[in-house]
Amino acid sequence: MVSRIGKEIELSPVEMASRYSSRALYNLAAGSPDPSTIPVGEIMNSYDRVLSDLGPRALGYPGAGGQESLVKEIENFLPFLGLSIRKGERLVVTSGAQHAIELIAKYLLENEVVVAENPTFVETLTPMKLRSSVVLPVSLDERGMSVDELESLTRTVKVSIVYIIPNCHNPAGVTTCLERRKRLAELAEERNFYILEDDPYRPISTGVPPPVKSFDNNGRVIYVSTFSKILAPGLRIGFILANQEVAEKLALLEQNDFSTSTINQYVVADLLKRGVIQGRTEQLSSHYGRKMKILVESLRENRLDDFNPPSCGFFLLLNLHKDADSVFHTALTKGLLFVPAGPFFLRGGETYARLSVAVAQEEHIVKGVRVLKEVLSQD
Amino acid sequence: MVSRIGKEIELSPVEMASRYSSRALYNLAAGSPDPSTIPVGEIMNSYDRVLSDLGPRALGYPGAGGQESLVKEIENFLPFLGLSIRKGERLVVTSGAQHAIELIAKYLLENEVVVAENPTFVETLTPMKLRSSVVLPVSLDERGMSVDELESLTRTVKVSIVYIIPNCHNPAGVTTCLERRKRLAELAEERNFYILEDDPYRPISTGVPPPVKSFDNNGRVIYVSTFSKILAPGLRIGFILANQEVAEKLALLEQNDFSTSTINQYVVADLLKRGVIQGRTEQLSSHYGRKMKILVESLRENRLDDFNPPSCGFFLLLNLHKDADSVFHTALTKGLLFVPAGPFFLRGGETYARLSVAVAQEEHIVKGVRVLKEVLSQD
Repeated sequence: MVSRIGKEIELSPVEMASRYSSRALYNLAAGSPDPSTIPVGEIMNSYDRVLSDLGPRALGYPGAGGQESLVKEIENFLPFLGLSIRKGERLVVTSGAQHAIELIAKYLLENEVVVAENPTFVETLTPMKLRSSVVLPVSLDERGMSVDELESLTRTVKVSIVYIIPNCHNPAGVTTCLERRKRLAELAEERNFYILEDDPYRPISTGVPPPVKSFDNNGRVIYVSTFSKILAPGLRIGFILANQEVAEKLALLEQNDFSTSTINQYVVADLLKRGVIQGRTEQLSSHYGRKMKILVESLRENRLDDFNPPSCGFFLLLNLHKDADSVFHTALTKGLLFVPAGPFFLRGGETYARLSVAVAQEEHIVKGVRVLKEVLSQD
Repeated sequence: MVSRIGKEIELSPVEMASRYSSRALYNLAAGSPDPSTIPVGEIMNSYDRVLSDLGPRALGYPGAGGQESLVKEIENFLPFLGLSIRKGERLVVTSGAQHAIELIAKYLLENEVVVAENPTFVETLTPMKLRSSVVLPVSLDERGMSVDELESLTRTVKVSIVYIIPNCHNPAGVTTCLERRKRLAELAEERNFYILEDDPYRPISTGVPPPVKSFDNNGRVIYVSTFSKILAPGLRIGFILANQEVAEKLALLEQNDFSTSTINQYVVADLLKRGVIQGRTEQLSSHYGRKMKILVESLRENRLDDFNPPSCGFFLLLNLHKDADSVFHTALTKGLLFVPAGPFFLRGGETYARLSVAVAQEEHIVKGVRVLKEVLSQD
């Protein structure tokens, strides 16, 4: 007496790696924002302000769909992401992007066909995988998702959702180019599928192309964003922008979990209103850019060069040309933690490592790469 | 291309009523704790303490299953609820009780048979209803769930989950007696079903019998609790106590939503550690008891006496002997808001109203009942 979801759920490789984090000298595994960048003081002041101003109102039940004041602030924030609410669209506040994707999968999927980039982020794919008949891979290269390959696929298969991480891909680090975004939005109309655009890294990146959602004329793109990277993941606040029909149902589905903290919604609304969140992009983009540059240079210096250079975000996907799981275990004994990337792939991938610059300090990135080189040079 | 859950989800009558709350002079609808009882100052100090002490650590990703420090504090809190962790059991922190029930339904149900009290709380039933083949009602009387009726039922039907709200029932106000609790726990073993014991009101009640879970020798009871009533619903922190196998899977399922705010977990842990939460029961129990006494007396004075007198909690279920929906609309024009209780029933119930003393002030309870009498006396 267990559901299919109950039977098939597994420990994610990211959670698995995080259990080893206390043993890591060089943590190139974590996908959390750098603790040094989290504006603890601003957040503390905001809790004080919200509780002083609203009192018990900030601590009541959240209601489904999101607090009105936060919805309004996110509406004002959308242009900052290259978006706006068009006629027939609506916002839904969620407990972060992961919760958003769980809601979307729950609403749309019941043994349909899902398409995802190969590789893709295993944790966000899981809610879709557990509710679909099959997840079909399309290739990812240095210019992002291969939309040509997707087009071929849709000639023979009726696809329900195409899942894309357009910017600073997790785990591959790449960004889908402008031309492919436009073509993808067209294809969704032609072939009548939904695009689930998962865009957590845009707020900490500069110079990425406009969202696929901005080319969507027919409500086929469901856009997911989060304040986890630009502000703090521990608040668990994200949102969905979707056509009215979908958005209203997703808001109703929130009655089944009511999981989005009321006070945290007010805190994010307060920090948006004061421009604190919007003001962080440049700083964060250069902070992570600097660390990524060090990672790329260290890898090249050590002749570990089978990767696409990431344009932004936290992650780089390195082909180790050896079994990543066994490298992982040896590396761990020398203090290096990374995520073996096999589970991110729908096919292949056993020799890949996801390296992250998110939490590691600059000298630890350099040292971590040396350890990796050392481990790979053994036997 | 919409799932069964997507197709069947509806606006809950509680959410519906809450949309009218700004028009209510006498709010006998809300199930939120009385704002005057929420310890805003204590919570504000706790956010300050947690952020000062832990800094960015309080704002990272939550991980699945719950923060270690909160799990430890809840373990210490269990005896306060008449419980303890036995061998082979485990706690899982959730985003409140509603999220807990969504996780449990997701894990266990795929077209199985669910049994619930008639009436039961519609919002918590929904996650089960949307994933079961059928929900079968068993009667509820002044001593709670009719376990005899359940026993008869299980002779002919293979039941997967029996859902019970043992204390201060929502919407019926009654408490299941000791004898029936013991028999229910035995029956779960004999007939091999799970009991989902949803117990949000115990922390604000005195003198209720021990949990069904305390009579569970074989891991058949999944116990759900929350800090929403005793502390504040806006934090969205609750928990599940279940056998190891179930609890571990529920924790894994949290990877699919990661919805439980990290900092709010630390705040609840901090307030548990300081005894702030434990110290509130007496005061809250008498606060709501006093208001319930006024409601009961007002109803009797107005000869509205077809109800079971509630022993604790927020709710009283009144038979209006008229269609509750049309009474609802007329009452609203006179400033009275209640919840028509039809949707809480699996069969019948069209003439019932759920009256709540949660947020209403004492004089508003009296006036609200007068309005109700007036509306019922018309035509």
